Amino acid sequence: MKETTAAILIIGDEILSGKTEEKNAKFLISELRDLGVSLRLILVISDDVDQIGAAIADLSKRFTYVFTSGGVGPTHDDVTLLGVCKAFGAEMHRHAELEAALRKYFGDKVQETHLRMADVPQGSTFITLPELRWPILSYQNVYIFPGVPEFFRQKFSAIKERFRASEFYLKLIFTKQDEFDIADHLTQVAKDYPQAAIGSYPVFDRDDYRVKVTIESKDKQVTENAFNMLISLFDSSHIVRCE
Amino acid sequence: MKETTAAILIIGDEILSGKTEEKNAKFLISELRDLGVSLRLILVISDDVDQIGAAIADLSKRFTYVFTSGGVGPTHDDVTLLGVCKAFGAEMHRHAELEAALRKYFGDKVQETHLRMADVPQGSTFITLPELRWPILSYQNVYIFPGVPEFFRQKFSAIKERFRASEFYLKLIFTKQDEFDIADHLTQVAKDYPQAAIGSYPVFDRDDYRVKVTIESKDKQVTENAFNMLISLFDSSHIVRCE
Repeated sequence: MKETTAAILIIGDEILSGKTEEKNAKFLISELRDLGVSLRLILVISDDVDQIGAAIADLSKRFTYVFTSGGVGPTHDDVTLLGVCKAFGAEMHRHAELEAALRKYFGDKVQETHLRMADVPQGSTFITLPELRWPILSYQNVYIFPGVPEFFRQKFSAIKERFRASEFYLKLIFTKQDEFDIADHLTQVAKDYPQAAIGSYPVFDRDDYRVKVTIESKDKQVTENAFNMLISLFDSSHIVRCE
Repeated sequence: MKETTAAILIIGDEILSGKTEEKNAKFLISELRDLGVSLRLILVISDDVDQIGAAIADLSKRFTYVFTSGGVGPTHDDVTLLGVCKAFGAEMHRHAELEAALRKYFGDKVQETHLRMADVPQGSTFITLPELRWPILSYQNVYIFPGVPEFFRQKFSAIKERFRASEFYLKLIFTKQDEFDIADHLTQVAKDYPQAAIGSYPVFDRDDYRVKVTIESKDKQVTENAFNMLISLFDSSHIVRCE
């Protein structure tokens, strides 16, 4: 079974310079998790066409889905779609239906800066939904979302079911042993169950446990077996609880 | 004047799977800003040696500094230092002084899993400070920090002054014009002042202004001139305030 994977590409100087707090990757992390999609990479870069193009070309090859945030709009620093053109060797063209919709929406006040919103990479796909004023743009496996968090959420939520994959099975062990004492057990179980992801997270600010161990896979039985093996290896008197 | 740039590399499945909220990039964004360092890229990846190695090799060539977070510790999923070895073609070796310090600290209880903490890439640099129990490890321009936020902060704060660069000069314009009406002005000023970064951030949930425009550079005069040119182009009756 091939896993469904994803990368998030956040585009925006405002995030890197601390002018705006990043919210879309944060939102998408939990959404993708609930959808059973394995998020493998998050990249935050500047409003730079060459970097955006290189990132999209690379990520679209490596992951099932790429979700971009930001850099769509009418100003000079909105260059995400130019980046898509670079990534796929596509030409920008003015999309007739979108232009017509913009002319209708802005009426007499319509200017060239409005119509530029109809300039999209040739070969783009539009996802049009009754609840959305403007369509969602995608190019192959790359989904292009606006950076403004309320619009990002609205658009992603409207199409998220199409990304749904099989669910994750997760088990947790909280122990008072420290990482040094369980390291070899973890290595052994990780080796015996390569399909399971075994994580170990020490905490230093709590009295009740020292390490949280996570066991996760897409196969319920694999998760259970790896969990049971760890339980049998750990010092049972130090296990605080399991989930 | 060559700008001082940085990239942040966050290593950890727990961030990508939503088990742990990312705090170190968030902290570093504002720290680097205050230090005058241009943060150019943030990358979040899995605990995977090959990916870590490839990322470090790439980022260390492109930026003045690379700061890594996570993947240092005694368990099977702590592979950041192996990634450093891959990136630089270095061998892992057991560092004699660090081993001695670990033996002293753990005393009779010392095990092989403790001593593994002394395995570092050959050619690493140690930054030892009286206020830190354990040294900070770096390799060329790559600084390796732990993922646990309190230790990350403590270690970064201890050495941050060595990264200080010249400060940023930022001016802000808040206007009631919308982005479509100012897009061409922004393009013009961005072209006339290539040293300045001109940002445009629309808001949709406020009554008092519609767009925040940011003008920023390392040269006070350039920032002032670009700001003044924008002010002269914008509709003055719509400017709400400047900072």
